[in-house]
Amino acid sequence: MAARATAQRRLASISSQLAPAAPPAPDWNSALQALQSIFPPEQLSLDLPTREKYGTGWGSLLPPAPPHAVVHTLRTQDVVEVVRIATRFGIVIIPTGGRTALEGQFQASCCNPPAGERWTGGANGEEDERPRDAKKRETARTERPTIQVSLSRMNRVLAVHEQDFQAVVQPGIGWQGLNEFLAKKGIKLFFPVDPAPGSEFGGMAGVAGSGTNAVGYGTLRAEWIQSMEVVLMNGDVIRTRGSNRARKSSTGWDTGRLFLGSEGTLGIITELTVRLAPVLPLKVALTSFPTISSAVSTVVSILTSGLSPTSLELLDGTSIRGLNLARILPERLEEEPTVLMRFSNASEEVNAQNLRKVAGIVEENGGRRLRVARDERENEELWKARKSQYWSQQLLVGEGCRTLITDICVPISRLAEFVSRSDSYVSTSGLYAPIVAHIGDGNVHRAILWKGREGETKPPREVEELAKKLVRLAQELEGTCAGEHGIGLTKRKYLRAELGEGTLALMRTVKRALDPLNLLNPDKVLFPEGEEEWDA
Amino acid sequence: MAARATAQRRLASISSQLAPAAPPAPDWNSALQALQSIFPPEQLSLDLPTREKYGTGWGSLLPPAPPHAVVHTLRTQDVVEVVRIATRFGIVIIPTGGRTALEGQFQASCCNPPAGERWTGGANGEEDERPRDAKKRETARTERPTIQVSLSRMNRVLAVHEQDFQAVVQPGIGWQGLNEFLAKKGIKLFFPVDPAPGSEFGGMAGVAGSGTNAVGYGTLRAEWIQSMEVVLMNGDVIRTRGSNRARKSSTGWDTGRLFLGSEGTLGIITELTVRLAPVLPLKVALTSFPTISSAVSTVVSILTSGLSPTSLELLDGTSIRGLNLARILPERLEEEPTVLMRFSNASEEVNAQNLRKVAGIVEENGGRRLRVARDERENEELWKARKSQYWSQQLLVGEGCRTLITDICVPISRLAEFVSRSDSYVSTSGLYAPIVAHIGDGNVHRAILWKGREGETKPPREVEELAKKLVRLAQELEGTCAGEHGIGLTKRKYLRAELGEGTLALMRTVKRALDPLNLLNPDKVLFPEGEEEWDA
Repeated sequence: MAARATAQRRLASISSQLAPAAPPAPDWNSALQALQSIFPPEQLSLDLPTREKYGTGWGSLLPPAPPHAVVHTLRTQDVVEVVRIATRFGIVIIPTGGRTALEGQFQASCCNPPAGERWTGGANGEEDERPRDAKKRETARTERPTIQVSLSRMNRVLAVHEQDFQAVVQPGIGWQGLNEFLAKKGIKLFFPVDPAPGSEFGGMAGVAGSGTNAVGYGTLRAEWIQSMEVVLMNGDVIRTRGSNRARKSSTGWDTGRLFLGSEGTLGIITELTVRLAPVLPLKVALTSFPTISSAVSTVVSILTSGLSPTSLELLDGTSIRGLNLARILPERLEEEPTVLMRFSNASEEVNAQNLRKVAGIVEENGGRRLRVARDERENEELWKARKSQYWSQQLLVGEGCRTLITDICVPISRLAEFVSRSDSYVSTSGLYAPIVAHIGDGNVHRAILWKGREGETKPPREVEELAKKLVRLAQELEGTCAGEHGIGLTKRKYLRAELGEGTLALMRTVKRALDPLNLLNPDKVLFPEGEEEWDA
Repeated sequence: MAARATAQRRLASISSQLAPAAPPAPDWNSALQALQSIFPPEQLSLDLPTREKYGTGWGSLLPPAPPHAVVHTLRTQDVVEVVRIATRFGIVIIPTGGRTALEGQFQASCCNPPAGERWTGGANGEEDERPRDAKKRETARTERPTIQVSLSRMNRVLAVHEQDFQAVVQPGIGWQGLNEFLAKKGIKLFFPVDPAPGSEFGGMAGVAGSGTNAVGYGTLRAEWIQSMEVVLMNGDVIRTRGSNRARKSSTGWDTGRLFLGSEGTLGIITELTVRLAPVLPLKVALTSFPTISSAVSTVVSILTSGLSPTSLELLDGTSIRGLNLARILPERLEEEPTVLMRFSNASEEVNAQNLRKVAGIVEENGGRRLRVARDERENEELWKARKSQYWSQQLLVGEGCRTLITDICVPISRLAEFVSRSDSYVSTSGLYAPIVAHIGDGNVHRAILWKGREGETKPPREVEELAKKLVRLAQELEGTCAGEHGIGLTKRKYLRAELGEGTLALMRTVKRALDPLNLLNPDKVLFPEGEEEWDA
């Protein structure tokens, strides 16, 4: 009986802590008054052009989804104030940074198509073609007032601990900014994970993606982000690892991992302690193959031999055709599967040695002679073939070309099958869908291209259909719908097929525990309950 | 008004899901009946010798804390059955594997000292010296019936995906078993993270520790454990990444990270998909230095130069004295700070090249001539200096020597200061406390040695005091109380000082959400609420 009484006391205490007070009905007028009493005008944007700018996705063709206000935070306490106002007056908060996210992560859900892919393109304004009931639900959500919290002005490097290979940064600086800072100071360290140019650390951690260096350095889910300061929806400011700045620790499960990949739905990151890598001699090389299979075999052999590639990138023949049209490289490349590689080792000597081995592996697999950059200039020239992809591809379609970038990832052993089967979908569709893949990771971006019509507000049906088929195929091949760009609004529909009900239920349980009022970037990653629109 | 009504509906639904039904008072007789109706005798140990064996910590001097029963699960469904019985009849479950955990992770909390360090040694039975009220509380908890779920018989390798550098394993096999399996099959891949010999994957993931290879390969918190099957306390069996076996993914936050380091308090891991690394030529080298500072400078230079060490281990003069006494190596080593290194590269050629650079760095820092193993036999011989540490140290004290292994970790830049300041604590204490450190990570194990008295049930006061001072010093130097051995029962008292109240509160919130009845390895990592005994 004593045990039962204790259990009931404990449960009463749990319930009182878990079951939130009813959230107030949104009261925008009071919230606005409170914001204005705390933030000076230069930190609080209420004008439509600014709000539209912050409500627009990178390259999005959708009509802007302007928040009611943008607060430009300068310090952690500013974020705490916004959280207090939001929870008091029932206002939604969306944290935002470089706004390079591709899947609608920082856009108000009311104004995004619940079932569309992310796509880039021009104008806006046309009649909405979504089903009537979808429109109705979104209209209801449109009325939820939203504060966008922009962390971009918190963009300082707070400390560099050179001997410890660490930097402490604010969320508004990106990997590029940090690396420029370090180079300027003459510190021979850098942050090696390289998602979209312009991305900032808050969002990088939020999406937990990667970039071209993942094959050598791992993704943002590796140990690059060691500790974070996070503002929780209960107003607490926590440090996920507390005072500990050691290279490793085992103090229970790492609360920081909750926020990595949470896409701004569980807390707002206000500071990060990140690990750095030494800057080492780098060498770029390029070759091409008769088939994707031989490219894959080459890559697996390189990885098995421990030859220290930092990047292994695949461009297919269609991508190379775009490059040739754009005359990116001085000479025309063969329009066949091409692998661009970067190697990084302790010395040029070791690079050269390893590259001789790579050349042998390429030859064994029937590839063309390995072209190795002779110097830094040639490194950059060859690497341009990778960096110029997304715009050179547009030449395949010409003026008015629009793009939907897909982001599946499969086990490397299934990559050749993915490419050949998806090639047949592409050819049936009559569309261009050139490949740029992080082949070492199995992460394939097919960029679906089409000629946009004036004023269209969503990709044509055949583009959406192709994108879905690519995801279904990837999942069939034990892969994922999202290799590095996250889920946001556009990929939610694929999660049930991939993660299963139980994992989704666990994610919901944690979301409820951390954001019981569902005010922090709601409806991202997970559908609102009862409004699931599963696909695949 | 509509918004408020919706919010209230949502809250009602949240509350019903979050607030658990009252847990039943423990009913061991019914639980036992249910266990016996499901499990044959060979899967259900009720005899005292087996229960005592499973209730005894590795090398623990404490009296055994036998669970009421040990269930040896053979399949995931067995685990689900135990969870159902436990939640139905109010029984505590403790998952267990190799039982190498050092901090009381799998022992019933009732029978462990709430405020003592982990220590190794002999006999038992003496009068308990703990304060009267602590004893009373523990007596109350002793009465909670406990089922230990041993996963050790689930020890198969279920699949190896060689091209994908992946293996799928059950929780009862360890890194050694997996590596032997791969070697026997002629597969040139291995699992590189190497915690205690005998540890098994379930527990390895549970503690999220590391070993000697962390400087090269990262810890278990890096991307080595990609996906897990986990049984939750609501009976769900989830796969943290679902059907996805790709090398990377960004489908929201990774639920698997909740269980890494949770020490069996949030779910029970029943299968793991792990990443493998290529087996590459390895070279061991050894040198010694006049001071710890010069050893640290050498290590930082090696890391900055990208020379691919997989292990950088420090033994201090006292440790070397033990080695010399034990005649581990054919010749006597200088009794001064000694660094053992392992390097792994694509070829012997590159190893040799890199080791020439290392020799130069050592010389610049005033170290002795670098001794490099000439072949595999010498590799093994030199590495023995590391592997024989814990027993050779015992010779410093002689017969009856007992050991408390400490596990702090500090930023590398603070390591020399940690060693010199802690040296002075050690010399004041009059004890031996030789150092074995993963110097590349800043993880210092001082093994506190003393001559045990017959029947003592806890370390002498001066041993416990020294252990506490080491933790306080590490935390002062921005380090952690637990570099790789986890928290269990013995380190809980240090967490508040290190992580802060907010992070601890977040951990509690998540624990409550996942295990609302508090039946899964309760009181580990976190103190029972209202029973905190903070130290430092």
